[in-house]
Amino acid sequence: MTNSITVKPIGVIHSSLKESQGAPIQPVFAKDSEGVIEIYEPYQEALKDLDGFERIWLIYWFHKVVEFRPLVKPYLDTVDRGLFATRAPCRPNPIGMSPVRLLKVEDGKIHIADVDILDGTPVIDIKPYFSKFDKFEVQKCGWYDNVSDQKGIADKRFQK
Amino acid sequence: MTNSITVKPIGVIHSSLKESQGAPIQPVFAKDSEGVIEIYEPYQEALKDLDGFERIWLIYWFHKVVEFRPLVKPYLDTVDRGLFATRAPCRPNPIGMSPVRLLKVEDGKIHIADVDILDGTPVIDIKPYFSKFDKFEVQKCGWYDNVSDQKGIADKRFQK
Repeated sequence: MTNSITVKPIGVIHSSLKESQGAPIQPVFAKDSEGVIEIYEPYQEALKDLDGFERIWLIYWFHKVVEFRPLVKPYLDTVDRGLFATRAPCRPNPIGMSPVRLLKVEDGKIHIADVDILDGTPVIDIKPYFSKFDKFEVQKCGWYDNVSDQKGIADKRFQK
Repeated sequence: MTNSITVKPIGVIHSSLKESQGAPIQPVFAKDSEGVIEIYEPYQEALKDLDGFERIWLIYWFHKVVEFRPLVKPYLDTVDRGLFATRAPCRPNPIGMSPVRLLKVEDGKIHIADVDILDGTPVIDIKPYFSKFDKFEVQKCGWYDNVSDQKGIADKRFQK
């Protein structure tokens, strides 16, 4: 088993979402939510050409989450599910991944919309969304195929 | 700036890809490539319900990559681009993200297809692919909109 790995924050997210209670659980449920990603100076040169993309993946660290739970009741279900079959934040490595909408890149800051991420969250990577690589037609989405709740709003169940 | 973060491998990928030279650069270019993810015991319970999904995101650590470069020539382009506008592996935190096809989950192992990941790569998270959350119609994909190369095969340019 490989030893532990060290990750450095490359920036921080500023958003209007101060706690999980009432926050959207995915960008698709966050249509009115905007935010700004502040990228730290050593990484700003790597932002070149990013503004040609419409959507970007933010990879970040859930900094306000309870410890790993192997089974969880997802926000959109009423039954305990295996953690890896959900997007719940209490993961062995609490890494989040959100495909947010890119508004503009300016002075080392990325302005974004469809934001489902809490204010102050450390960002660890940014990747462009490519239709060719990321957009798949799938027929089966497990337990989610029987879910009727389409609100997608969080509560405090996974909050530290 | 938040301090550094520690990540633990939750498993390891076994694949037929021994080096980057000749490997597919994304699952969409890896139609004939199969592999197995061995999940370490403390995390196996969290695999429950995963087999209902058709595709999963593997989040992993590029373990054979050169150091961070702010500007890179992507495999599919001939011009230097900002690293964050590419999926090149030499990132500040070399985290990879691949939407592979799920074949079956059995005895703590996940059998997968469309594998673009080198043998021995440490896995740090697994998330199900949800059409509702991950599939977006985007009109603009930056520099990639003018790319004609559709082979998607890697060479040694980012290999340590």
